[in-house]
Amino acid sequence: MIIGAGFAGLALAKKLSGKHFQVVLIDKQNYHAFQPLLYQVATAGLEPDSIAYPVRKVFGKKEGLFFRMAEVEEIRVEERIVCTNIGSLTFNHLIIATGSRTNFFGNQKIESFSMPMKSVPEALNLRSLILQNFEASLLTQDLKERERLMNYAIVGGGPTGVELAGALAELKKHVLPQDYPDLDIRRMHIHLIQADDRLLPGMSKHSSEKSLQFLKKMGVEVWLNTLVKDYDGREVLTQNQRIPAQTLIWAAGVTGAFPKGIPAEAIHRGRLKVDGLQRLYGTSDIYAVGDVAFMEDGTDSKGHPMVAQVAIQQAHNLATNLLRNRPTEKWKVFRYKDKGSMATIGRNKAVVDIGHWNSQGRFAWILWMFVHLMALVGFRNRLVALTNWSLNYWSYDKGIRLIIRPFHRPSA
Amino acid sequence: MIIGAGFAGLALAKKLSGKHFQVVLIDKQNYHAFQPLLYQVATAGLEPDSIAYPVRKVFGKKEGLFFRMAEVEEIRVEERIVCTNIGSLTFNHLIIATGSRTNFFGNQKIESFSMPMKSVPEALNLRSLILQNFEASLLTQDLKERERLMNYAIVGGGPTGVELAGALAELKKHVLPQDYPDLDIRRMHIHLIQADDRLLPGMSKHSSEKSLQFLKKMGVEVWLNTLVKDYDGREVLTQNQRIPAQTLIWAAGVTGAFPKGIPAEAIHRGRLKVDGLQRLYGTSDIYAVGDVAFMEDGTDSKGHPMVAQVAIQQAHNLATNLLRNRPTEKWKVFRYKDKGSMATIGRNKAVVDIGHWNSQGRFAWILWMFVHLMALVGFRNRLVALTNWSLNYWSYDKGIRLIIRPFHRPSA
Repeated sequence: MIIGAGFAGLALAKKLSGKHFQVVLIDKQNYHAFQPLLYQVATAGLEPDSIAYPVRKVFGKKEGLFFRMAEVEEIRVEERIVCTNIGSLTFNHLIIATGSRTNFFGNQKIESFSMPMKSVPEALNLRSLILQNFEASLLTQDLKERERLMNYAIVGGGPTGVELAGALAELKKHVLPQDYPDLDIRRMHIHLIQADDRLLPGMSKHSSEKSLQFLKKMGVEVWLNTLVKDYDGREVLTQNQRIPAQTLIWAAGVTGAFPKGIPAEAIHRGRLKVDGLQRLYGTSDIYAVGDVAFMEDGTDSKGHPMVAQVAIQQAHNLATNLLRNRPTEKWKVFRYKDKGSMATIGRNKAVVDIGHWNSQGRFAWILWMFVHLMALVGFRNRLVALTNWSLNYWSYDKGIRLIIRPFHRPSA
Repeated sequence: MIIGAGFAGLALAKKLSGKHFQVVLIDKQNYHAFQPLLYQVATAGLEPDSIAYPVRKVFGKKEGLFFRMAEVEEIRVEERIVCTNIGSLTFNHLIIATGSRTNFFGNQKIESFSMPMKSVPEALNLRSLILQNFEASLLTQDLKERERLMNYAIVGGGPTGVELAGALAELKKHVLPQDYPDLDIRRMHIHLIQADDRLLPGMSKHSSEKSLQFLKKMGVEVWLNTLVKDYDGREVLTQNQRIPAQTLIWAAGVTGAFPKGIPAEAIHRGRLKVDGLQRLYGTSDIYAVGDVAFMEDGTDSKGHPMVAQVAIQQAHNLATNLLRNRPTEKWKVFRYKDKGSMATIGRNKAVVDIGHWNSQGRFAWILWMFVHLMALVGFRNRLVALTNWSLNYWSYDKGIRLIIRPFHRPSA
């Protein structure tokens, strides 16, 4: 039984099905979402349907693979039962690939007023809200209020925050002045707030510096070494200033997402403790892979980075071990091969690190697009994404500015 | 002031803006929806974003055109004020282009349990529900209940009903057996229920007969001369049978949609009474165009058909009259030129009437696609729709089987 159809769960289900296993794959959604491109959905550059792929379409009539759309409520480790909203299921082997969720570090006010961006509906809510804000800006004559409505605070200087800030800056430059000729779009401010002393702390210093340069050139106000203390839906409070902003996008952290029932000793910093074979601490025949898994490898006390590459490699290693049907003493221990990392800031502006080599600018941008296009599941999705990107490049436009379902935030 | 950015409102705003008018265009959505293709959104053939187009993108920086996203609550005819949820606006000329809404003929039970399909969110709800039904079918061992979950009743044999029935039949034949190998999809029944003695009563007898043949061949159960009496969310009651069906799609009628405040004497059969110049009965400088307008022309007591062609022609005629700035005695009276009508049933199966000429089959289908592609607003939308149609044709697939937001119906 595999819980989760993200990168890890999908890779495992593909490898294990059709072999001597009966595979039951469970996800609360009926599709696999390509999370690295959610920010483009939120900023009207891509439609949601080109980054989501139906799970059933991945497998078709594959023998021995059963998909069930269900929400897992509890794992009963001792009884070897998974309780879901569609009933209880027993397992021989259980693989927990439930990914991560937004971490608000316990701040409930921030949680209720800020916009997370970890799922397709959340990205669509953000798209609606951004557009609703500009419609609302037109209606007020109070210039301060108008500016507040047009301001965006993005918390977190990792790839998501950087990419989102860049995409908003492009909307500001090329799209919004056309759409809202009655608004002085120069009064829109995009604040990127980072606790660390540099952006993209997971990447090389070169890439960090260059991404900062790119963003500043595009008009983004970047605040390094800055902590967000509070947010009331109207004003962001940091350690040394107040930033008026109707919208705060929270990209400052994620933590493991998993159901109830995991023994406390198997949880470490919000993730599930596994050994080098992905085995959940203190259990047998239960594994955790991907974002949710925390593997102590002696060298990095924070565990592996919570990215797709790790998830896919762990899935492949575990699948190989399971398929070989050998005693676990002979299983291969997981070793992460860092294939590099990349982030895009805007048109012709991306940063790429591959080993000691790094690149910033146009070539990196083309590489970024190629890698992301190839990583999308399904030919249709690639074709539609490529169509959109080509048109956006050619027209300097992001055409999907639709408020399909208006977003109603709890009022401040 | 123009209320509504449908076919009529959009055409009028395009013609009148940039001239000697100040045009205020109001719509409750920020996009124009291409309603004739909603059924493809509901059946996973097209993404919603390729049939919707942002209103602001249509006009860009056009002089003298102001778009406001707002819901009109009341028209105060005497005071020449339109009250909206964003405040009251005064007008010199008012054009009501508010279209139509689903007509349940007062049956509240049908209204609360059936699925309408007049807007993008409604089409998305239907897409979610269709997919949810199949996921739910997997979970029951009760064969009768399973069949009920897989059954669809479509009420109304006009273009929407016929096209939807055909699209569901294609899902049943090509897609669902792949996605749900554990279900006996042959047990799925698609019922098309028509009160009239033929399908597509607005078209030629040839086309009616051929569409009936097409649908029967595709396995749709067509019930002519059949009236739906009631629906409790589980079973459809007609005058002579009970059809178990979890989903009833109501495409049996539309009626004018307009805000409060219209004098009762200006309303006829749920639409707004206008003269040959589109002037609202008993008022001055207030016009109604498109679906909402009812023009008595002496020949057809039901008024013009509620279709895009009429809306666009009325808009053009009214725009020309307004722009000429002549006394109304010299205005040109509206004459509808029927350019023909068409409906598609499935791959290589469409019916087209143009004057006395009609065609059924493959050529009609290609014509249908060409006309609909050209009628879509925006190059991006055409390109994405064409991409989808090409892939669907080549793969016999409808790839957008996503439950982005699950639909929760009031329980039966």
